[in-house]
Amino acid sequence: MKKVAIGIDIGGTNTVFGVVDQEGHVMVRDKIDTPQKPKDEGAPAPEIGEYVNALSTTIEKLINSVKLLNSDVEILGIGIGAPNGNYYSGTIEYAPNLPFKGIIPLIDLLRKNFPELRALALTNDANAAAIGEMIYGGAKGMKDFVMYTLGTGVGSGIVVNGDLVYGHDGFAGECGHTMLVPDGRLCGCGTKGHLEAYCSAPGMKRTAFEILVRDNATQSLLAKYSFNDLNSKIIFEAAEKGDAVAKEVFAKTGEWLGQGLADTVHHLSPQAIFLFGGPTAAGDLIFKPAIDSMEAHLLPIFKNKIKVLPSQLPEGDAAVIGASALVWKEVDA
Amino acid sequence: MKKVAIGIDIGGTNTVFGVVDQEGHVMVRDKIDTPQKPKDEGAPAPEIGEYVNALSTTIEKLINSVKLLNSDVEILGIGIGAPNGNYYSGTIEYAPNLPFKGIIPLIDLLRKNFPELRALALTNDANAAAIGEMIYGGAKGMKDFVMYTLGTGVGSGIVVNGDLVYGHDGFAGECGHTMLVPDGRLCGCGTKGHLEAYCSAPGMKRTAFEILVRDNATQSLLAKYSFNDLNSKIIFEAAEKGDAVAKEVFAKTGEWLGQGLADTVHHLSPQAIFLFGGPTAAGDLIFKPAIDSMEAHLLPIFKNKIKVLPSQLPEGDAAVIGASALVWKEVDA
Repeated sequence: MKKVAIGIDIGGTNTVFGVVDQEGHVMVRDKIDTPQKPKDEGAPAPEIGEYVNALSTTIEKLINSVKLLNSDVEILGIGIGAPNGNYYSGTIEYAPNLPFKGIIPLIDLLRKNFPELRALALTNDANAAAIGEMIYGGAKGMKDFVMYTLGTGVGSGIVVNGDLVYGHDGFAGECGHTMLVPDGRLCGCGTKGHLEAYCSAPGMKRTAFEILVRDNATQSLLAKYSFNDLNSKIIFEAAEKGDAVAKEVFAKTGEWLGQGLADTVHHLSPQAIFLFGGPTAAGDLIFKPAIDSMEAHLLPIFKNKIKVLPSQLPEGDAAVIGASALVWKEVDA
Repeated sequence: MKKVAIGIDIGGTNTVFGVVDQEGHVMVRDKIDTPQKPKDEGAPAPEIGEYVNALSTTIEKLINSVKLLNSDVEILGIGIGAPNGNYYSGTIEYAPNLPFKGIIPLIDLLRKNFPELRALALTNDANAAAIGEMIYGGAKGMKDFVMYTLGTGVGSGIVVNGDLVYGHDGFAGECGHTMLVPDGRLCGCGTKGHLEAYCSAPGMKRTAFEILVRDNATQSLLAKYSFNDLNSKIIFEAAEKGDAVAKEVFAKTGEWLGQGLADTVHHLSPQAIFLFGGPTAAGDLIFKPAIDSMEAHLLPIFKNKIKVLPSQLPEGDAAVIGASALVWKEVDA
């Protein structure tokens, strides 16, 4: 009998579903809209009950589809990655990018509709990615590693002794909010100077404008974009064409990231740190300065020991695959 | 039968021994000199073999003493705290404050002399203190906590899911070497800006002179001490007398420490962080600014959740008690 797990990634815009086999292949996919905050202040917020019904309907559709593909299949469970997802309680708590208020008991609500499944588990997306890396990716066989996800924000997932570190309350692994530059840039969380304000994709854009301003670099390929239009992909393409400003953005981003990675090494001494997300597609442009900077900041006992590696999860399906990996970890299948 | 463990703390000057019972009481104590680096460049370094013999002789003396006190006693093992002590390999590796060069297989060497003992284990002093806190102190029953030791340096020990985090190589938990002030003060490790350069006892002295210089504070009680004579105890006494410079030293030290603690929380989300060591005797003078600063740096999901507590280990015996706790952890007695 073929065993499979359902992975669900709840993002601010879309909720993406996949049925994943034990080798990490996505057999069937689906997608629904994530409910949005009402545009009018006074309008009622979306109902969680309706969203749970929509999730359940899609899950049932997926189960039927995969059984059509292979009648001898066992659905082991559902793993969900969501912002502020709490593994211990199965709740989503005060997620700033979701329209639901307070603490949402998502796993309890779903379990009522799927009592037959062996495992229902929830965590945040970066933790899910770390488990995905361990079950299907480059961290197979590793007991101690850390995953950094660079995107709209900077997330992280920490694995110690083969288990994800959830902390006392289920929320550990927020390395994007460690201090990088005291009294520096405003971070999305409201505090100043956090790593996320420098090493996320929007952080790279801010760095680009900082350099444009400093050098009055009117000749740069980046000078023709508005603050709202420039993004990390455009910066990458400009760097590949040799644009000096764009290349410096990657150099600075890597340097900052390396400082943060060194702090993580000094806490945890992992075997490897995996980098995931859009900006890491730039390869050496970001890996080289990150590794150089990390090494420069490390105590001698850690130098030339800690690998910094690109994630082996497939970019498009990574979130769903990571979420599904929660199930394999639960049932230890 | 009463079960006991031997704890040994190897410091730069002294090696301290104690036989500790299951309640954390030190039944008998002893002390020998730690060998010193030769003063003349060309002179031969001390032999590790001679030191192991001296350790073994004292251990045997202690075993005999404790058996005189109580004939019905079982010695379960020996736990050792030492700079750069590696739990996995039982080795001391490149310890800058010890005269032995390279990698010293201390546990293997000692096991030859004490083959009958159930557990021989080694780690660094801050890790040993964390285990001591868990077995005998304020962290009893806690699964996720962190210990910061403030002294000549700043050490730390991290506990996740009830186990000490050693990392992939045995050296995790060096939070004193996370970045506090980029391009800031020179740290003892050779890098600039590490937390240890600000929040250790010598760091507090440097802060005192920074404030004396800034304010030309000739009226301060601290102004009559040389750079080599001023220490954290004198600063504490001056603060208690109301000296403004001394009080600001504690306020700044706490503020810096709180920034570092927030980084640790963002990694690990511990239930509590314990502070240990001389400067923490100042109580609210350092705890209050540390807690205020940590809270100011935390993500909303962590605010007002993480306790910052004084260590419950007895100051004088803490190192030996912590080292002995390694044995209880090993044999799970």
